Amino acid sequence: MRWLMLGDITGHPGVTAVVRYLPDLVTKHRPDLVIANAENSAQNGRGITRQAAERLYDAGVEILTLGNHAFDQKDTASWLGDDPRIIRPANLHTSVPGQGYTIVKVNGGTVAVLNLIGPAGIPLGSNPFLFFDQFYKDHSASFDLLFVDFHAEFTSEKLAFGWYADGRATAVIGTHTHVQTADERILPNGTGYLTDVGMTGPRDGVLGVRKETVIRKFIDQLPARFDVADGYLQLSGVLIDIADNGRVTKIERIQQLEG
Amino acid sequence: MRWLMLGDITGHPGVTAVVRYLPDLVTKHRPDLVIANAENSAQNGRGITRQAAERLYDAGVEILTLGNHAFDQKDTASWLGDDPRIIRPANLHTSVPGQGYTIVKVNGGTVAVLNLIGPAGIPLGSNPFLFFDQFYKDHSASFDLLFVDFHAEFTSEKLAFGWYADGRATAVIGTHTHVQTADERILPNGTGYLTDVGMTGPRDGVLGVRKETVIRKFIDQLPARFDVADGYLQLSGVLIDIADNGRVTKIERIQQLEG
Amino acid sequence: MRWLMLGDITGHPGVTAVVRYLPDLVTKHRPDLVIANAENSAQNGRGITRQAAERLYDAGVEILTLGNHAFDQKDTASWLGDDPRIIRPANLHTSVPGQGYTIVKVNGGTVAVLNLIGPAGIPLGSNPFLFFDQFYKDHSASFDLLFVDFHAEFTSEKLAFGWYADGRATAVIGTHTHVQTADERILPNGTGYLTDVGMTGPRDGVLGVRKETVIRKFIDQLPARFDVADGYLQLSGVLIDIADNGRVTKIERIQQLEG
Amino acid sequence: MRWLMLGDITGHPGVTAVVRYLPDLVTKHRPDLVIANAENSAQNGRGITRQAAERLYDAGVEILTLGNHAFDQKDTASWLGDDPRIIRPANLHTSVPGQGYTIVKVNGGTVAVLNLIGPAGIPLGSNPFLFFDQFYKDHSASFDLLFVDFHAEFTSEKLAFGWYADGRATAVIGTHTHVQTADERILPNGTGYLTDVGMTGPRDGVLGVRKETVIRKFIDQLPARFDVADGYLQLSGVLIDIADNGRVTKIERIQQLEG
Ligand SMILES: [Fe+2]
Ligand SMILES: [Fe+2]
Ligand SMILES: [Fe+2]
Ligand SMILES: [Fe+2]
Ligand SMILES: [Fe+2]
Ligand SMILES: [Fe+2]
Ligand SMILES: [Fe+2]
Ligand SMILES: [Fe+2]
Repeated sequence: MRWLMLGDITGHPGVTAVVRYLPDLVTKHRPDLVIANAENSAQNGRGITRQAAERLYDAGVEILTLGNHAFDQKDTASWLGDDPRIIRPANLHTSVPGQGYTIVKVNGGTVAVLNLIGPAGIPLGSNPFLFFDQFYKDHSASFDLLFVDFHAEFTSEKLAFGWYADGRATAVIGTHTHVQTADERILPNGTGYLTDVGMTGPRDGVLGVRKETVIRKFIDQLPARFDVADGYLQLSGVLIDIADNGRVTKIERIQQLEG
Repeated sequence: MRWLMLGDITGHPGVTAVVRYLPDLVTKHRPDLVIANAENSAQNGRGITRQAAERLYDAGVEILTLGNHAFDQKDTASWLGDDPRIIRPANLHTSVPGQGYTIVKVNGGTVAVLNLIGPAGIPLGSNPFLFFDQFYKDHSASFDLLFVDFHAEFTSEKLAFGWYADGRATAVIGTHTHVQTADERILPNGTGYLTDVGMTGPRDGVLGVRKETVIRKFIDQLPARFDVADGYLQLSGVLIDIADNGRVTKIERIQQLEG
Repeated sequence: MRWLMLGDITGHPGVTAVVRYLPDLVTKHRPDLVIANAENSAQNGRGITRQAAERLYDAGVEILTLGNHAFDQKDTASWLGDDPRIIRPANLHTSVPGQGYTIVKVNGGTVAVLNLIGPAGIPLGSNPFLFFDQFYKDHSASFDLLFVDFHAEFTSEKLAFGWYADGRATAVIGTHTHVQTADERILPNGTGYLTDVGMTGPRDGVLGVRKETVIRKFIDQLPARFDVADGYLQLSGVLIDIADNGRVTKIERIQQLEG
Repeated sequence: MRWLMLGDITGHPGVTAVVRYLPDLVTKHRPDLVIANAENSAQNGRGITRQAAERLYDAGVEILTLGNHAFDQKDTASWLGDDPRIIRPANLHTSVPGQGYTIVKVNGGTVAVLNLIGPAGIPLGSNPFLFFDQFYKDHSASFDLLFVDFHAEFTSEKLAFGWYADGRATAVIGTHTHVQTADERILPNGTGYLTDVGMTGPRDGVLGVRKETVIRKFIDQLPARFDVADGYLQLSGVLIDIADNGRVTKIERIQQLEG
């Protein structure tokens, strides 16, 4: 089985990049499941809208994950629970709308997709290590394979979680930093790991934001409106091949860079 | 002209990896200058010792840069100023021992190597954007080419600085996160850029530290002694080719992975 | 000479508290100068408006200081420089509008009022210790007495600065945490010191914000609109008596608590 | 019933201050229970030792609470569980040695003492709001009165917790910032509240540490050894009077200042 995961889709340009490049990638790589982090997929890069989600589904994404920006749009809480194809970090408080994981049938197998957040850089939820233990104990009988989008800031927490989940998760793919890392590997117990899959969106900004604004903010520290950059696009993703025994046999980074 | 930069050399295993792999890399790629970040090159991974520095020089490194761990060893302050081949972040307070940049003759040209830190994730110095402006104004007449080791935590500050220095620095290479990023590029005004060059040291730890300790710390939060991991090694670096007009023509990541 | 300083005036209720209680305090204590931190004095508690400033002047405040919220209102940058009675943190970047200190004639003496921010908890400016050294060197010939509003988060940075400025500043009064501390004292070289003067505004919220919102945010971590609380009011201030030799002879906290 | 709580006892000087002043305070105020935060009571200010604990018991303290420094001494984990008079933050991971609360008989009544930490400034444990809900549900039948040492950094989290626990906890007393706040009050449902009780230790340092070291660190940011200050002492505490109906009738801050 093959999965394709796309990194943080950012703003209108990010959705455009998916629409522009995903169909060909699907034709070329024939993934059995396409997952994408959509926490910045709203037109202005803050959170997600139903319109953005629909465009991503139409382009071929099947499961959307989120992160610290999940609820940046005021009305997201009102509809998130209605769409079983979108998950937000599972280790948020029980009162938070939406679901933290979803289970889908793929080619006769059962795949769970789990979204976790934190713990150190974006500490919005309970400890994801402990949450994962409980999740695995409660649900591992219900799925064959497990994909984890681990949304976190620091390389230390991501690497530590990768090792921690090795052999339990099928793949642990980091999101949030918007820069793809070059450390894809298969851990000793068969888990596919990548510290960060990177961003899908404008190529010539800073994490998708207009670079002039970010630079000025690092200098004068005044409140600033972070607009999505324009210009060339990039798509960042990762392909994961899984054998019948549930072990990853290949993990390969993907970048589509304009310009 | 070609430069080779190696990422954070960590502990005794990191120095061993340099000794083991650098000579062949030099033979193969024939760099005109070899730079390495050595902020974790002490045997225990904390700071730098004269012994570690000597072993790195012997293996072929010519300039050593540092970071937030520069003064982790108690006696570093007493000798750092004596060795013109080692620089610590330049934007530290003027009372801090050592120098923040060095200028070397390479193949008839003059190359400045500058070390900067911060601003957001490891805010130990003055604003590196403003410091860089002043540095460039004061010293750009004294060098032909400028290498910057930008030691910082967040992808946002690194990318912003890369764009900021584009056309002034010859290369901006990030260090500190110990995970190599896959976003090497030549910016529009000719600056070679990479968000993080990655770590040289033990491959199966967390940033070079024994993974069991880091995992336990994320769970119980108790004070813990972070020992350097053992086992397989990795070397992380980047090659930068510079044309006579001072523009980077090629930037290529290097990884040597055991196991 | 006697100064009265009021702590962070928060929202419409904060301005109301000043209007309600300041005139009587002035009648009772006869301060020669009234200073107030107004970084939250806009109706919604975010930044400052001309209307809020005018109401505070009418009530008897003579100098307004600010802090990390100085530019929360979009148009503040456009008018701040026109009003010599308002200062924002002096150690911000030189491109930031407005002035960081002001000098006023009081009873035949010359009083400088300086606003500083940071360094650790709200690191928006350059190092306030170093900035203060330069400020004192450049300007101490121009004033007889010096009041410093040190806007910072942690007790460590505030206490350290108090000791650092002892004998140079006439008074160092902390702001920002919105809770008055009980550690007023006269330091050995004559400087009046208080870690935080506290908030002027709604008494039954959390730092002036509706408590239900803050509590919920600590539980579910979702984005929330922080509205100013209503109900009973409080005024927090400090009285500083200065002898002709420039040493503080008395420092006394003031609280006006409704309910 | 009357309780006396002393704030963070810091280093050898802190223990000396308790030995010197507590007996007279007990004679004068006749508390039924004496509690003290001892997270810095080791001779060097880092954590706690059995020797320090014994001296505090001898001086009249009956229950010791801790905080983020609980395990700074290497051997604390080995003996903490043996002493029922010391508690560490209860919302740490279940694998952490020691207990998080204790229940004592006082004058025929049953008093629970609970230690909590976090959530925002020192996020070492699980969410203390949620932990408190569960604790109260599980244990409130086992005690008549409940004292909470809420060890946290920010005024926002402490005030929010005070309001949250109002009517469930008998008293919520903050620790950790080492500066006493002046906001003692009885909340509407009868809970006695104080944001921070302050430090017991050397008066002329910065939070108990030699001021020269802390100042230098804010300037040069180099690693530094934080030694406990010497000179004049201070004791910081709070007295809480509780009626038979369990409501606080009086809360009064105490300071003993030498020099
Ligand atoms: Fe994110
Ligand atoms: Fe993102
Ligand atoms: Fe570093
Ligand atoms: Fe490093
Ligand atoms: Fe503030
Ligand atoms: Fe404020
Ligand atoms: Fe503490
Ligand atoms: Fe403490």
